[in-house]
Amino acid sequence: MLDTWLDEDLGRGDLTQSGIHSSKIVNAHWECKQKGIFCGGGLVKSLYSHLDPSVSILLKKADGESFTHGERIMKLNGPVSSLLAGERTALNLAMHLSGIATATEKLVSEIQNTGVLLADTRKTTPGLRQLEKYAVRCGGGVNHRLGLDDAAMLKENHIAWSNGIESSIKNLRKSIPWTSKIIVEAETDQQAKEAVLAGADGVLLDEMSVDSIHKLVPQLRTLANQASREIMIEASGIDPTEIKSYASTGVDIISSSAPVTKSNWIDFSMRFSEKGENE
Amino acid sequence: MLDTWLDEDLGRGDLTQSGIHSSKIVNAHWECKQKGIFCGGGLVKSLYSHLDPSVSILLKKADGESFTHGERIMKLNGPVSSLLAGERTALNLAMHLSGIATATEKLVSEIQNTGVLLADTRKTTPGLRQLEKYAVRCGGGVNHRLGLDDAAMLKENHIAWSNGIESSIKNLRKSIPWTSKIIVEAETDQQAKEAVLAGADGVLLDEMSVDSIHKLVPQLRTLANQASREIMIEASGIDPTEIKSYASTGVDIISSSAPVTKSNWIDFSMRFSEKGENE
Amino acid sequence: MLDTWLDEDLGRGDLTQSGIHSSKIVNAHWECKQKGIFCGGGLVKSLYSHLDPSVSILLKKADGESFTHGERIMKLNGPVSSLLAGERTALNLAMHLSGIATATEKLVSEIQNTGVLLADTRKTTPGLRQLEKYAVRCGGGVNHRLGLDDAAMLKENHIAWSNGIESSIKNLRKSIPWTSKIIVEAETDQQAKEAVLAGADGVLLDEMSVDSIHKLVPQLRTLANQASREIMIEASGIDPTEIKSYASTGVDIISSSAPVTKSNWIDFSMRFSEKGENE
Amino acid sequence: MLDTWLDEDLGRGDLTQSGIHSSKIVNAHWECKQKGIFCGGGLVKSLYSHLDPSVSILLKKADGESFTHGERIMKLNGPVSSLLAGERTALNLAMHLSGIATATEKLVSEIQNTGVLLADTRKTTPGLRQLEKYAVRCGGGVNHRLGLDDAAMLKENHIAWSNGIESSIKNLRKSIPWTSKIIVEAETDQQAKEAVLAGADGVLLDEMSVDSIHKLVPQLRTLANQASREIMIEASGIDPTEIKSYASTGVDIISSSAPVTKSNWIDFSMRFSEKGENE
Amino acid sequence: MLDTWLDEDLGRGDLTQSGIHSSKIVNAHWECKQKGIFCGGGLVKSLYSHLDPSVSILLKKADGESFTHGERIMKLNGPVSSLLAGERTALNLAMHLSGIATATEKLVSEIQNTGVLLADTRKTTPGLRQLEKYAVRCGGGVNHRLGLDDAAMLKENHIAWSNGIESSIKNLRKSIPWTSKIIVEAETDQQAKEAVLAGADGVLLDEMSVDSIHKLVPQLRTLANQASREIMIEASGIDPTEIKSYASTGVDIISSSAPVTKSNWIDFSMRFSEKGENE
Amino acid sequence: MLDTWLDEDLGRGDLTQSGIHSSKIVNAHWECKQKGIFCGGGLVKSLYSHLDPSVSILLKKADGESFTHGERIMKLNGPVSSLLAGERTALNLAMHLSGIATATEKLVSEIQNTGVLLADTRKTTPGLRQLEKYAVRCGGGVNHRLGLDDAAMLKENHIAWSNGIESSIKNLRKSIPWTSKIIVEAETDQQAKEAVLAGADGVLLDEMSVDSIHKLVPQLRTLANQASREIMIEASGIDPTEIKSYASTGVDIISSSAPVTKSNWIDFSMRFSEKGENE
Repeated sequence: MLDTWLDEDLGRGDLTQSGIHSSKIVNAHWECKQKGIFCGGGLVKSLYSHLDPSVSILLKKADGESFTHGERIMKLNGPVSSLLAGERTALNLAMHLSGIATATEKLVSEIQNTGVLLADTRKTTPGLRQLEKYAVRCGGGVNHRLGLDDAAMLKENHIAWSNGIESSIKNLRKSIPWTSKIIVEAETDQQAKEAVLAGADGVLLDEMSVDSIHKLVPQLRTLANQASREIMIEASGIDPTEIKSYASTGVDIISSSAPVTKSNWIDFSMRFSEKGENE
Repeated sequence: MLDTWLDEDLGRGDLTQSGIHSSKIVNAHWECKQKGIFCGGGLVKSLYSHLDPSVSILLKKADGESFTHGERIMKLNGPVSSLLAGERTALNLAMHLSGIATATEKLVSEIQNTGVLLADTRKTTPGLRQLEKYAVRCGGGVNHRLGLDDAAMLKENHIAWSNGIESSIKNLRKSIPWTSKIIVEAETDQQAKEAVLAGADGVLLDEMSVDSIHKLVPQLRTLANQASREIMIEASGIDPTEIKSYASTGVDIISSSAPVTKSNWIDFSMRFSEKGENE
Repeated sequence: MLDTWLDEDLGRGDLTQSGIHSSKIVNAHWECKQKGIFCGGGLVKSLYSHLDPSVSILLKKADGESFTHGERIMKLNGPVSSLLAGERTALNLAMHLSGIATATEKLVSEIQNTGVLLADTRKTTPGLRQLEKYAVRCGGGVNHRLGLDDAAMLKENHIAWSNGIESSIKNLRKSIPWTSKIIVEAETDQQAKEAVLAGADGVLLDEMSVDSIHKLVPQLRTLANQASREIMIEASGIDPTEIKSYASTGVDIISSSAPVTKSNWIDFSMRFSEKGENE
Repeated sequence: MLDTWLDEDLGRGDLTQSGIHSSKIVNAHWECKQKGIFCGGGLVKSLYSHLDPSVSILLKKADGESFTHGERIMKLNGPVSSLLAGERTALNLAMHLSGIATATEKLVSEIQNTGVLLADTRKTTPGLRQLEKYAVRCGGGVNHRLGLDDAAMLKENHIAWSNGIESSIKNLRKSIPWTSKIIVEAETDQQAKEAVLAGADGVLLDEMSVDSIHKLVPQLRTLANQASREIMIEASGIDPTEIKSYASTGVDIISSSAPVTKSNWIDFSMRFSEKGENE
Repeated sequence: MLDTWLDEDLGRGDLTQSGIHSSKIVNAHWECKQKGIFCGGGLVKSLYSHLDPSVSILLKKADGESFTHGERIMKLNGPVSSLLAGERTALNLAMHLSGIATATEKLVSEIQNTGVLLADTRKTTPGLRQLEKYAVRCGGGVNHRLGLDDAAMLKENHIAWSNGIESSIKNLRKSIPWTSKIIVEAETDQQAKEAVLAGADGVLLDEMSVDSIHKLVPQLRTLANQASREIMIEASGIDPTEIKSYASTGVDIISSSAPVTKSNWIDFSMRFSEKGENE
Repeated sequence: MLDTWLDEDLGRGDLTQSGIHSSKIVNAHWECKQKGIFCGGGLVKSLYSHLDPSVSILLKKADGESFTHGERIMKLNGPVSSLLAGERTALNLAMHLSGIATATEKLVSEIQNTGVLLADTRKTTPGLRQLEKYAVRCGGGVNHRLGLDDAAMLKENHIAWSNGIESSIKNLRKSIPWTSKIIVEAETDQQAKEAVLAGADGVLLDEMSVDSIHKLVPQLRTLANQASREIMIEASGIDPTEIKSYASTGVDIISSSAPVTKSNWIDFSMRFSEKGENE
């Protein structure tokens, strides 16, 4: 994708550069204009090395590390024309991804020490799914399935259109790789119990209240235990402001799209300095 | 990009579908779960027609139209396997773009009737620049340059590394297409005046206070007038909460990255119904 | 890949056609020159519809169906130039895939009624993995993981380079999507038991004798039961001629690369006839 | 194609590696588990250098060289994550191609010292034609035309649909590059003779018996001689077990698809060892 | 390539159209502003059908047909936005190719009735080789080899770096497909004779005078005859103004790059008319 | 595009090389066979470095520099197989582009010292627009817009289909980026005046006589002056032989497609020499 992203900004070439013709080798650095969790360092290095292998970058923060206002995130050195050609694209990537990592970390810190994991969803910006899921990991979250091919998930409509949960799971076991899990999205207690009894690997309790889940989880654990099975229980479709309460219900995982769909970019900017001046 | 986006979600194929084998033809619709400005209708049609030409879509809202909570944005009809295969990607695109259109419209409505235009910036999500700039237009904004090849813009560093604004503009006129404009980003009054005198097509007043701009604009207009020239004056780097005050300074344009970098996705969801039931 | 495959044969264009200039519309059919299981019908239709939408194909056998010597697998109708342009590529695909489906079916029929599944491996022809795995399903087999991203599998070397099975599984649960399984490839009884105790989702018993597996399986089942867990047990690295004995050991799955690496192509050929003559 | 092949196995990334995080630099080697002719060394080097330029490979066998059971084919050194990421794809390529080279060499050795060449056909695995044709050369064979654009070949149907061999050849000479040969596939003596008289560059005697060809060849040579022309005579569609008899008929070339369509993969495996231990 | 060519002109979209928003369906035609030989009709149809399937085109001239000043070459009908979007690219292709066809026809007409063929060379515009070679055929010429993989040609340097013509030909026969010809480029009489004796399929007499060739050709024919071989003799590197004299030397073929490297575009233009007005 | 261009010539590989197997490292140089302006040096370096990084090239002429018959343009050193593999493609590019630069320079020299600029047009060879526009700059010309997305240009038909020039410009200002210019192509005095009054950034006087333009220009300047605006005036559709007269009319720019559509390739050839011999 690096080429696509760079082309998108460079098009037929940087007009301004074409009139300046500067071949200066300069230093630059990225400055943080607020605090947060960094994400995108390796990507920025790949982008610049793709654009011009003579650009060198020294990362001051690893992906997943926190930074504060005013800190320098990385140092760059190279031809001014190359630094400028990649500037906007590199910043756009890192500002967007760091925004996601920062928002994730905020949610994760709320459920710290509960043993409950925060997972993402498939609500990701088209073209950036793997990077955004990586940003979620940088912020301390875990990933839900990466795509439709990654695990089977029976949702409301699948269940409605088939002969019920049990028969669907039986059919899926024959058609999907034996290495793939089957998850059931339950909208009612009944569906959740059926899923456990039918041998689902996980149950997703969708848009249920804290109270409902609190009562349901022990029942599901007991059912699974009786069948010598383990079950992963996930709460989804929750209001992020209630995450703490949900974390106390006994579920294993809470999933939320908020780090992607409701986060702001983190503000970084690139500062230049003549060689020598800035070290 | 349609293939890339679909592949990202479908990967090696929808596992859940592979076990359900439903060939049902169903109706579906998209429901709005909050109010806003729609963007992405044509794109969703292209996506589905690329995926399966037998899917038909009836748009209830044109791009740029407003919708309220509970409204239906579009109706879909087609094989359930195809509707599900494109569901997440289509929603992700439209939810993201409608978020931008909605945020744009909010800013535009604040400067309504001032004659001042709201422009976007090059801070766009990598891979989605043209779509995000389209979403800004749907929200009532205008576009700034689309890429580095679209107009020449002399920034702080270009000026520092060359022999000043006048000589830079002279050089650019020789190297860029005669059909391209030259814009100067000024950080001081002095730079802005030099730019006008040197024949720039536009001047961008960056991170200046409302007061400074208020005083500077008439001076720039006078200089331009004396030289029988017209000049476009833009305020950039502003705090979006002060946009109304900036609109009263006499500038022609205000640019802001906020509709892209600080907007939330709009929440749509796809609802299915057996054929017949839902018309 | 359709374009790549067609280009590979057509290159700069069919020279022979260029001198014949035949615009005849003709009938043709594919004839089987031996018996087997068919695979590739949908693919051949896609290939021809990509090459020339005016070619029509009537499949006489569905993928997964058996055929005998002399049977006609499909009928084609279209411009002779198009039928010839795709002939070799279409036949090559179907002959190769039907060879795999046929070889799979032969192994599957040997373990019929044992409840044991036959799975494939990642030993597939570069560029054709998904199609070859599909051919295995057409022959009655199930798929193992589709790629390295599809489930985690701890092999000999992973275990050697880490701090053992238990700690590796613990680390993996944090880094991989929670929807992904963890499989352990065990070369000793000890490793297999450790894997079960550490909570692996599956254990793969590699290159063990029928006797060893026969003794080991009940022990693993007991361990899993005590921990209220279920475990999938797979035998791999077996000699295909002993598959029946392995199927009696109590394992759930036997995997084999033989349908891909030791199968011959099935012989089909395309016969032409003037329109009218052949219906 | 290297990217496509690697992606096919790596997908969204090696999950197992993601939990092990081993940055160890290790040695490895490829061990032969049976004898044969090697093919694919350069390709494996390209694949790994594409994946990670820091991997170094020392080939112990050149393409086309023979190896025996237990021999080491190559030594590798590099980061364990890179060696594992390319392992399956590299092995799949070399095992498949070495299978073809080995099968070719077996046929070639049967017609050794007869002066007759063994040629391949266009029956090749889609996506791998050039590599499989290279494997045939490594096994001592020569290539037939690489694609439909590489020489004109009049087959049964072309002849039936045109005004006969002579007129077809005349037309082809005008439409194809003058640097391209014209070959005629003959199913009868009569067609073969017509082809020679009409100035074909080669004649392919298809599915004829040894006896028929034995009688026909001298007649064709005489006809060609009388016309001051040279003609290449090829036997095709033969049973590989009769290749020796066909080689005694006076033909110049025998073509066979068997090395591609009826060969088994050669078994190699990659063995790892801690740095230092294995030299 | 159609996408690349259209993108080159359309870039991020036709700005002028974006402000006009005309959805008119209009008629248009292409008018010739000079006489010549047409080439590019099918290509223009493909280009427009790729851009917008609703555009219909009626060709008034087939490729290879002559036209005069003022004639209409084709009629178009479709949405004005689509007609304009493809206008420049379509015209550029057809004007360039018709220029080549016209220049070819002029040379071909000079050697009419001599039985000598006019061939092109590998001096073609990068990206357009197959189209330019097609234009040469439209003008009555034949093609030389299409690329380096299409026939072997021993040039001055190949001969210098090997052990001479005879040994080079012997080596080539073993390494290239048996279906490929071997041509020798001779700069002296001696080389030409060696080539014939060594069994070359063709000899190219490069930059020799008319007189030299006149003397050499019968000698080469005699040598070939004595060896029961046929040889194609080509004159290359000639001055196009002397083509008539070269055609009288007894060579089979004359090759020239002039139709590509020294031709002017033919002037066509597209004229629009409101629907109804122009039929 | 480098890959496409090389593939076009190399196809499935250089057959001649395959039989010569020369691994010689040799020197070579490019010799000019006529005088002109060079263009393509950087491109040839990129092409060879893409093909084989071990090839080194020393340019003796920079792009835009003049050369005379017999001069050496560049020196090359590298494996003979690589030099030959890129030879034809590299020469084709540079010969074509230098032809354009040379033709441009001839026109530019005719209007030297008049202050009038020579611009190109969108009549460029499909696939090579950016390179051909670069060649025009190397010859001393300036570029017109690079594509339809680069500036808005109202032509005859746009005006006819809209509500006139003034309303079209008003609409365009709202839909195109504010950084883009609007140009009007005028076929009459009246249209030109309307364009100036409506605030066009440039006016293009198409196919008007020298006299008409001579009279019109001062009128347009006056109108612009009265509105405190600047206007760029261009003459287009001119006969290149009259360029001097047009340059005296007071226009700012003259555009011509002749350097692309009516230029001949410059003749270069590559000469080889054994290492050492040629320095």
